Amino acid sequence: MPTKTVEENRRASAISLLAEPKLDALLITTLHNVRYLTGFTGSNGAVLLFQAEPAIFFTDPRYTVQSQQQVNCRVRIAKGPLTKSVLREIDRARVRRVGFEQDNLTVAQLESYKKELPARAQLEPTSGLIERLRRIKDAGEVEHIRASVVANSRALENALKRFKPGMQEAELAAEIDYQNRKLGAEGPSFDTIVAAGERSALPHAQAGPAKIGRGILLIDMGAFRDGYASDMTRMVHVGPATPKYKRAYRAVLEAQLAAIEAVKPGAVTNAVDRAARSTLKRYGLEREFVHSTGHGLGLEIHEAPRIGRRDKTKLEAGMAITIEPGVYSEGWGGIRIEDTVLVTPSGCEILTPTTKELREI
Amino acid sequence: MPTKTVEENRRASAISLLAEPKLDALLITTLHNVRYLTGFTGSNGAVLLFQAEPAIFFTDPRYTVQSQQQVNCRVRIAKGPLTKSVLREIDRARVRRVGFEQDNLTVAQLESYKKELPARAQLEPTSGLIERLRRIKDAGEVEHIRASVVANSRALENALKRFKPGMQEAELAAEIDYQNRKLGAEGPSFDTIVAAGERSALPHAQAGPAKIGRGILLIDMGAFRDGYASDMTRMVHVGPATPKYKRAYRAVLEAQLAAIEAVKPGAVTNAVDRAARSTLKRYGLEREFVHSTGHGLGLEIHEAPRIGRRDKTKLEAGMAITIEPGVYSEGWGGIRIEDTVLVTPSGCEILTPTTKELREI
Repeated sequence: MPTKTVEENRRASAISLLAEPKLDALLITTLHNVRYLTGFTGSNGAVLLFQAEPAIFFTDPRYTVQSQQQVNCRVRIAKGPLTKSVLREIDRARVRRVGFEQDNLTVAQLESYKKELPARAQLEPTSGLIERLRRIKDAGEVEHIRASVVANSRALENALKRFKPGMQEAELAAEIDYQNRKLGAEGPSFDTIVAAGERSALPHAQAGPAKIGRGILLIDMGAFRDGYASDMTRMVHVGPATPKYKRAYRAVLEAQLAAIEAVKPGAVTNAVDRAARSTLKRYGLEREFVHSTGHGLGLEIHEAPRIGRRDKTKLEAGMAITIEPGVYSEGWGGIRIEDTVLVTPSGCEILTPTTKELREI
Repeated sequence: MPTKTVEENRRASAISLLAEPKLDALLITTLHNVRYLTGFTGSNGAVLLFQAEPAIFFTDPRYTVQSQQQVNCRVRIAKGPLTKSVLREIDRARVRRVGFEQDNLTVAQLESYKKELPARAQLEPTSGLIERLRRIKDAGEVEHIRASVVANSRALENALKRFKPGMQEAELAAEIDYQNRKLGAEGPSFDTIVAAGERSALPHAQAGPAKIGRGILLIDMGAFRDGYASDMTRMVHVGPATPKYKRAYRAVLEAQLAAIEAVKPGAVTNAVDRAARSTLKRYGLEREFVHSTGHGLGLEIHEAPRIGRRDKTKLEAGMAITIEPGVYSEGWGGIRIEDTVLVTPSGCEILTPTTKELREI
């Protein structure tokens, strides 16, 4: 008997989630979840999971060949919108309680399902079911994330080789994205942040026309590679670092290492956050740490779990998370250091290979 | 008295749309529509338009400074989710019928609004109201689209200078995106298509690891610049073109020029589509033209109107549309030629400056 594929196992796990809300079927419309359950990478697809029969994948004629290559469950190619094709299968399978993803389906889409829903069926809102499965990465996903993170680190070094003082933030950001693409990424996993001088004090600064002079340079970058995200922040000081910068850098690095030290199976996410915060407190900088310590990543750049003050998820082996404390002082600048970290059975592994020694260029 | 800003005029036009569905207010949550009505370019925002009082813009504390710089109506900074802040204003203004955008709001978001909705208010689904306004571009928008289109054409020339036979499709796509970024674009307006040889027969080919050898090369590219999209397809033949290629290229170019010839105020979109199709019929190629002739573009890469067989929008001066017929033959390849065109009072203007002469490199 052939062994089950990764996607078959994921679908089996997903079906077990239908028992408690007593669903006969679950309609998956969030594309990342569709990809997770089927391997399909196109831009239009849906999945119907059933308690009592194998899953069905839906797409349109543009993806006929691609779905044959990628998807190993039943496939329906819908000529018009997928809605009609999905409703036909709901009718044929004679299911009653059909879950849908209420954080993805728009009001108009739900209406178009309701309009022609078979009389025996009813639609039930669900939230975060597949996302909960996706928190724990399997071996293949870990290797995808590792490859994405390693390539992202290499892209930073390649881009920094082309750095010249006086370059615009946006030019360096373009260079970073280009280097990631040349190393095989599909594209950036978020808008690359290159923030120089005082602008580094804005936690979500967009790379702009500002020129990079002597002083602080914050770079927050990531890419999708085979669908999986990387995410890293590194600081560079253009010219010799000041004593104030050195002290703040040491504080953030210690906070980051303390948080990483706290990452292990069974640890609660707010304890990881607290480890970073209490370290910064010793430096009198805890009020300048205005965001949370990190977040999960995978097929999306932000996934469960969140690592913040009020988050109480127990970490489990197989979770991939970022650890990224920072301090921000208006009129001076900001410092953030971010790695991607994998929770392992015995603690954690830092996936990001880039040095965290204070860097002057 | 100061003259009204572009955004004030747009909000006034939007309010006139509330009369027919008898709405007292309209909640705008689609980010492109929020940008259109306020100038706000951040990632989290909403607008409440009222019949009886000035509009209110909502965002979160990350955008306090940015909203002061960009938005010239009342601003509310919400500490938590925007929902509560929006509901407070709905209550204060004592409005009854409040429209929402049913193609944007998710089922879960609508629920969270309904849960705390003031008793006197009710939420009414609307569809495409602001999108209808956005079809007609004002002078500033036309200049943004023109600048985006011109830079995109320049990016193609810069990228082709770096082309070498044997290069991977994905490498040339990365080069194109990089050149657009260096010319000031925020990023690509869709996944750049670089399809070589037989792969050019797939209308939505993704640039992949395939090497570009002698033969057909199809490039479909665009970028966002100051928020506005460009979109262009050009063919390049690597090495001398075959007679079959030359004939098909001539057919597609004639079809494209015939469709452009049909673009003028008052013309119905399906007549433009028909102009392209009937030209291809003379070459016996009409069955190989498997998609529609074009689409509007602006803040989004695909906007109203659509230019297809069944679309019956009357063109109006100020619409910016693509004209992009193509023919696709499995096992041989595909040819598509695409310009961005502006409907003018007397006809139309081709915005794309790149040559359409048959090109061999």
